[in-house]
Amino acid sequence: MIIYDNNVTGCLEQLIASMSPDRVFILTDTNSQWFVYPRLMESAGSLLRDAKTITVKSGDMNKNIDQLTDVWRYLCREGATRNSLLINLGGGMVCDLGGFAAATFKRGIRFINVPTTLLAAVDASSGGKTGINLDSYKNEVGAFRNPDAVVISTVFFSTLPDYELMSGYAEMLKHAILEGDEALNSILEDVPSKENISSDGFLEVVRRSVEIKVSVVEQDPCEKGLRRVLNLGHTAGHAFETFALKTGRAFLSHGHAVALGICVELILSRMLLDFDSERMYAVVEFVKEHYGPLHITCDDYQVLLGIMGHDKKNPSAGQISFTLMKSPGNPLPGIIVDSKDIEAAMDIYRDMFGI
Amino acid sequence: MIIYDNNVTGCLEQLIASMSPDRVFILTDTNSQWFVYPRLMESAGSLLRDAKTITVKSGDMNKNIDQLTDVWRYLCREGATRNSLLINLGGGMVCDLGGFAAATFKRGIRFINVPTTLLAAVDASSGGKTGINLDSYKNEVGAFRNPDAVVISTVFFSTLPDYELMSGYAEMLKHAILEGDEALNSILEDVPSKENISSDGFLEVVRRSVEIKVSVVEQDPCEKGLRRVLNLGHTAGHAFETFALKTGRAFLSHGHAVALGICVELILSRMLLDFDSERMYAVVEFVKEHYGPLHITCDDYQVLLGIMGHDKKNPSAGQISFTLMKSPGNPLPGIIVDSKDIEAAMDIYRDMFGI
Repeated sequence: MIIYDNNVTGCLEQLIASMSPDRVFILTDTNSQWFVYPRLMESAGSLLRDAKTITVKSGDMNKNIDQLTDVWRYLCREGATRNSLLINLGGGMVCDLGGFAAATFKRGIRFINVPTTLLAAVDASSGGKTGINLDSYKNEVGAFRNPDAVVISTVFFSTLPDYELMSGYAEMLKHAILEGDEALNSILEDVPSKENISSDGFLEVVRRSVEIKVSVVEQDPCEKGLRRVLNLGHTAGHAFETFALKTGRAFLSHGHAVALGICVELILSRMLLDFDSERMYAVVEFVKEHYGPLHITCDDYQVLLGIMGHDKKNPSAGQISFTLMKSPGNPLPGIIVDSKDIEAAMDIYRDMFGI
Repeated sequence: MIIYDNNVTGCLEQLIASMSPDRVFILTDTNSQWFVYPRLMESAGSLLRDAKTITVKSGDMNKNIDQLTDVWRYLCREGATRNSLLINLGGGMVCDLGGFAAATFKRGIRFINVPTTLLAAVDASSGGKTGINLDSYKNEVGAFRNPDAVVISTVFFSTLPDYELMSGYAEMLKHAILEGDEALNSILEDVPSKENISSDGFLEVVRRSVEIKVSVVEQDPCEKGLRRVLNLGHTAGHAFETFALKTGRAFLSHGHAVALGICVELILSRMLLDFDSERMYAVVEFVKEHYGPLHITCDDYQVLLGIMGHDKKNPSAGQISFTLMKSPGNPLPGIIVDSKDIEAAMDIYRDMFGI
């Protein structure tokens, strides 16, 4: 159940009342604890006020076994039962970690996601993927488990820095490419401003984006086939993200990495599936303007290919598979691409970004 | 799919051939590595010989986060993909830990359980419960996930010490009580001897016991209701087991604890549901003869009640629920019992065991 409503506190109180858990826990991270939690509590009644709060350290590098264990231990110590409820209040890291903790504590308790970032609203909070990183491998461990409810709002977005908003917008760009020409045009034109980011109008834009994702996920919850279309931009994107993290060469948000990944994969789509050249240029120009490049040289290709080869969506060890596009609205998942072609696409990417 | 076959190596080779994984991993513990693994490999062909082996430390106290993390890291390092296969070769600890590792690595890879103990054969290896202990709390974290296959045999049982065999037999006693009078009589009379434990005849007895469990689990895989009948003997049994571990008062195998738990819970069934007195005495006498008591005094009741109150099958914090029997074959799950009645039953238990 996904609820789109800017009265988050009221929504949560109603949900808790209808689910009647014996205990309620709120998981936040240090960021949400500071910026979001007080706002949620301003108008809270006793159902939310009585909840126990667990706070973990912010940041994807803290989406790890140690913090997962901390959450398990907290729930255990505070007497959580199978009839308890966990509310994940935060970005993707909190939704992923908290969702996995809930999916596995006593083999599964109920949980609600309350995404506080645009990225989490359009991506991590719905779709049932939960998990943590294993050392430097992203989401290497996890479970498929749908939240019992998701409360999506735009009220917290005004607290976000610009790069964080644009990070979420990259996933919306991905959804739009998967949906078709019309959706893509509107995403390329209507970049949200600081002024309208918390508006009900933008909540509608977010809803349309989430609905594209959810309609895919419902047809293939455990990623056996179709769901892999949502991987668009992510095979190359994850490699950029991991590469930036490992080498410390630049700070790259998830969405920034995905935006660059989309460019590389549309270049591949152009090369291999005859994706329309003008549409490809339009997306690359958009990404150049709003995100900028990650600087790589051809000396980095082997490392990047190595990371791509490790992606859990690959059909077999060593093969690298992509979701590519025939045209906007026509994705083809599971296309195995030769290293040579990937290197050629990265050459073109560097050309187009002037690096 | 559960296969009953004493040609384990042949079975596994066939399964691997039909599942065609890109990589095969075998998880063992230090015990199975020593006693079982060489036997399995004696007649193995290349499909099994090429498998990579992960060995973890034996013992339920090692069914923990650290060893789980070791398994995840090993799979990650050795390039396991979603198309890889994990074979859990060992007792309940290996099946539980390996099953959970497989259920969560890359959000789920395939796995086969090959139970090497009687207890694992009749209990942990089928039914889809996987998990690890959290500090001193047993199976506090885990997932419901069915193995892709289970290969049950009796060939490894001759390597087991007597207490380990009787530990498994306690779960068979439980299944028999759930099934009815006839099954119960045959379990009370046909205790296996060292001579026939590895026979095809005993494999048939094991099969009947597993089938009782599986027929319950199929009706309620995620333990929302009916499955809780399998909890017979376990509310009190887990408390005895945890108590013995915490206080170091005695070594108590899981099955021994369950056998004592069955006694306490049949006493409660007699008190609250008019369970036949003669049948109750017959079971208690059997447990006295083959297992013996755990020494407790009334000073220990509060600790035991505290542990029972923490059981994840309780409907809500603080309430203690049991599966009780109206008669053999007629279980009633989820009976909430007052502390006073539990204390009275423990008094009677101490009387009957003469402690």
